[in-house]
Amino acid sequence: MKLPGKTVERLSEYRRTLLGCLEEKKNFIFSHELAARLHITAVQVRRDLMLIGYSSVLRKGYDVRELIETIGTIIDSEVTLNVTIIGIGNLGRAVAGYFRGKRSKLCLVASFDTDPHKVNKVISGVRCYPAPEMENIIRELDIRIAIITAPADSAREIAAEAVRCGIKGIMNFTTISLVVPSWVYLEEYDMITSIEKVAYFVKENKI
Amino acid sequence: MKLPGKTVERLSEYRRTLLGCLEEKKNFIFSHELAARLHITAVQVRRDLMLIGYSSVLRKGYDVRELIETIGTIIDSEVTLNVTIIGIGNLGRAVAGYFRGKRSKLCLVASFDTDPHKVNKVISGVRCYPAPEMENIIRELDIRIAIITAPADSAREIAAEAVRCGIKGIMNFTTISLVVPSWVYLEEYDMITSIEKVAYFVKENKI
Repeated sequence: MKLPGKTVERLSEYRRTLLGCLEEKKNFIFSHELAARLHITAVQVRRDLMLIGYSSVLRKGYDVRELIETIGTIIDSEVTLNVTIIGIGNLGRAVAGYFRGKRSKLCLVASFDTDPHKVNKVISGVRCYPAPEMENIIRELDIRIAIITAPADSAREIAAEAVRCGIKGIMNFTTISLVVPSWVYLEEYDMITSIEKVAYFVKENKI
Repeated sequence: MKLPGKTVERLSEYRRTLLGCLEEKKNFIFSHELAARLHITAVQVRRDLMLIGYSSVLRKGYDVRELIETIGTIIDSEVTLNVTIIGIGNLGRAVAGYFRGKRSKLCLVASFDTDPHKVNKVISGVRCYPAPEMENIIRELDIRIAIITAPADSAREIAAEAVRCGIKGIMNFTTISLVVPSWVYLEEYDMITSIEKVAYFVKENKI
């Protein structure tokens, strides 16, 4: 069963929130509590968990550890998926920081850059390779996912090259929309869109 | 008329794409071309533009400059909105980079940090103030929007302080979900959710 993208997003958010609960030593949570933390409805939470076959709600709520594990069996790969960051500037380094010790089934194994001051160094915990070596390294390290954090004007070229090298999923953080073949999964995020949305509602609220 | 959030997001994306067209010296665009660049349908594009009262489609498509201007009158504030970035690490610097010379109605006027090596310096084109001065600076510079790029464990405290200082809109890039009063607009983005979504579809496509 392939889940809708929005459901996968919410499952990922549930897990993140549940991991936060563990840090707070909170071992049980009700659907309405989980919902409130994510600004959605309890009905939505229950529907999503039903969809992945999770129904063991106790009197004191869901068992946080068990639910984290169940979500993992659904959204994580059984084998580790290797990831690369292309463009290790400020944004690339920020993304690299999120990987450290956090997602056991996603492994950041390489970054690429064209800057001679960066290549062949370990930056934010991951080795940076020269961009022209992309093909060799992607195949050698069996990298499946590319996160593009390079300057916008190089994004199309980089994506085409990544696809040619066998990348199967692309996360595009540049401000340019990409086009990829149907067998490659593409997700795009442009932070300016989110910031403009905030500005719009601040303006409309006349506050 | 207050537009739905998703419509505002798309209008922002249309503008970004149209600005890209100008750089390519493309002065006219059909709805289906704009739609294709954003992986949505032409019907969606036409519906959104109808909603904002734009209907002047010519034989050769929409006039790119005119459409950029129309979108601006809808989503931009008439007066400049001042913005701050709280936490000027890698992610904060990446966000600051996006502002430079790009959004005339959004002005990045200050950043805040607790690191003594950063405060009272200009970082990524914006002056970094010590976090304890937040209240004074936010009021003095009339800052309305705060972008939180600080470490997750300080996000709740920072948001509470920002709200107390009169911030009306928050863009939260940390991995912690926030709760804000009803008069503050909150938008949240966690990059790990997007990356986990890519991983899920790579896994499910068995590629």
